[in-house]
Amino acid sequence: MHNPPGVVKLPALFIADVCKKSVMAAVTLSVDLGDRSYPIHIGDGLIDTPELWADAIPSKAVVITNETIAPLYAGRVRDALGDRWKADIVLPDGEQFKTLETLQRIYDVLLEQRCDRRVTLVALGGGVVGDMTGFAAATYQRGVNFVQIPTTLLSQVDSSVGGKTGVNHPRGKNMIGAFYQPLSVVADIGALRSLPPREYAAGVAEVIKYGLICDADFDRWLGEHIEDLAERRADTLISAVRWSCANKADVVAEDERESGRRAILNFGHTFGHAIETATNYTRYMHGEAVAIGMLMAADLSVRRGWVELAVLTRLRTMLEKAGLPTKAPEGISVDRFLELMGADKKVLDGALRLILLKQVGDAVISDDTPPDLLRALLSDWLG
Amino acid sequence: MHNPPGVVKLPALFIADVCKKSVMAAVTLSVDLGDRSYPIHIGDGLIDTPELWADAIPSKAVVITNETIAPLYAGRVRDALGDRWKADIVLPDGEQFKTLETLQRIYDVLLEQRCDRRVTLVALGGGVVGDMTGFAAATYQRGVNFVQIPTTLLSQVDSSVGGKTGVNHPRGKNMIGAFYQPLSVVADIGALRSLPPREYAAGVAEVIKYGLICDADFDRWLGEHIEDLAERRADTLISAVRWSCANKADVVAEDERESGRRAILNFGHTFGHAIETATNYTRYMHGEAVAIGMLMAADLSVRRGWVELAVLTRLRTMLEKAGLPTKAPEGISVDRFLELMGADKKVLDGALRLILLKQVGDAVISDDTPPDLLRALLSDWLG
Repeated sequence: MHNPPGVVKLPALFIADVCKKSVMAAVTLSVDLGDRSYPIHIGDGLIDTPELWADAIPSKAVVITNETIAPLYAGRVRDALGDRWKADIVLPDGEQFKTLETLQRIYDVLLEQRCDRRVTLVALGGGVVGDMTGFAAATYQRGVNFVQIPTTLLSQVDSSVGGKTGVNHPRGKNMIGAFYQPLSVVADIGALRSLPPREYAAGVAEVIKYGLICDADFDRWLGEHIEDLAERRADTLISAVRWSCANKADVVAEDERESGRRAILNFGHTFGHAIETATNYTRYMHGEAVAIGMLMAADLSVRRGWVELAVLTRLRTMLEKAGLPTKAPEGISVDRFLELMGADKKVLDGALRLILLKQVGDAVISDDTPPDLLRALLSDWLG
Repeated sequence: MHNPPGVVKLPALFIADVCKKSVMAAVTLSVDLGDRSYPIHIGDGLIDTPELWADAIPSKAVVITNETIAPLYAGRVRDALGDRWKADIVLPDGEQFKTLETLQRIYDVLLEQRCDRRVTLVALGGGVVGDMTGFAAATYQRGVNFVQIPTTLLSQVDSSVGGKTGVNHPRGKNMIGAFYQPLSVVADIGALRSLPPREYAAGVAEVIKYGLICDADFDRWLGEHIEDLAERRADTLISAVRWSCANKADVVAEDERESGRRAILNFGHTFGHAIETATNYTRYMHGEAVAIGMLMAADLSVRRGWVELAVLTRLRTMLEKAGLPTKAPEGISVDRFLELMGADKKVLDGALRLILLKQVGDAVISDDTPPDLLRALLSDWLG
């Protein structure tokens, strides 16, 4: 297995040893960020492993989760934490609650519970819970410990690495936030079995992205294992999550505060964002829009003469096998789509920046797309 | 002049050169925090020095200030910023507005003004403006540039160094915040001429603190220059601010996130906090209560046999010359005072921690004060 620079593979025995009873298989990788480095534990059944928590949580813990996740996992986490458990904070479920108001509720409870700066905040849930809990941890008493238990595939392969935390503002997503690294991440792939099919598939789109943008070996492996991944096979999932996190960690370690190369993680996102906006954020999940966006970006890479048509065809097949959409929605004009792309925050200094593929496993930030080529692409896709 | 480790003295010419026109004298010191290091420029008339701003502000700037400061300095800062000026945000004046609600107003304006992550937030005012602006900078779009123009003596010698930012919560001061370092600090001692006498004196109390806790040379110098300082002589002020910032920078560089030695900066604060609480935060300014608290802590250090009685006598004289109170308020019982000290956040794990003097220029964190000795001290002071 490929180990990118910046990622140290710890002995797989590390967790296997402490988790003899319940864990089928587990690995730990380390995100290398100097004195903010932390481990990601990936395995099946980790949530129910008190031995792991004894190591991961150094103090009294407050678990922050939402109404959907709480009935499924909060009790199990509480049992596993034992004496370390102090309180649960159960938030309403949904991106619309990722606000300063919800954050204030979290502060209120932490102060009511008389938590001091030694408390550990545990995020149990998907990206929204992780973003808000991380931001609460970054800002409660100027920073307290933070542990993530991502329960969706998307959050396991995306929010686990990168340290982005925050809330939305009525005028924009993630406008208020901080870069703040967790103490550790526990990615229990057992939690993925209960995900609705579309939500699971949306996560697979991001997994596929990592191979395309920076890891040809992973892309090749995914091509061979996409059916197993679609069937949520435990060993395939552990490898896919681990490989995705390792790749993201590699990109982030190079550019922790997103000043340059980290932008390649947005592959497919400028097109995807336009699709999400044009359809009022109701028709597609984010990962579904990104899947279509990745195809469009791959197509543009073909038109620029950088990759073979076969790359596009193969990507379409993988996305279909994963249950993801591969066609753009109808009824959007080219001009409207361009406008939505132009309004995107990936635009800097007037030049439209797009992440394209120089080859499979090698994405580049391109700001010199010929306008005619882009219009022709959109015209073909939007029909 | 003493240069503590962790503080690099830059050539005094650095500013003098760019500010030929308006500056009488100026120095720059560097707070050494690795890749978060920054300069503090100290001088008379710096606010009106466009040449300085050209260097200090790398992009469009939003100036955050309050209703009291705005009429005095906002226009001058705007003029000096020239093309870099983008907007002023004028907050109501007072600690009671250091809240999440006010912070939200700042975010609202920044987004209304379409500020992206390249904006620089400029804090023009005292500690409250600095704390809120710094926290807004730490959290707007996950962190933007931040420059401080402290306009009170207290904020020049205290908030300029340390990176503490935040807002209050109804249940406690500074409960929500972050450690976030500015890009630079511009301490214009010219701004101190308009300070009300009590507010100025309150800042002098903190200046005196630095000599006592970590710099015997500075303490000796202050003893010789306390009248000049009380008269706000420009050259004395520049030296006093510079020496104070250098000392604080030294302590902070050792312990950026306040896990140990940084606590010595709280010398006088546990007693002072009890005095402030007992008098409902209305009778004394913070620095005034700290002045009394420092005397009480010095007295306790005498009673423990660590410093001579002469240290206490000399400190009382200096505080009197600075126009600071030197007696505790009447009508507080010893038990009540102990309770107020015990409720203080400097209490960890049950043991009362006090900052005491081993000698002048050498404060220690002590958690073994004999209870009888403390009661006797309070009995004498509260009379």
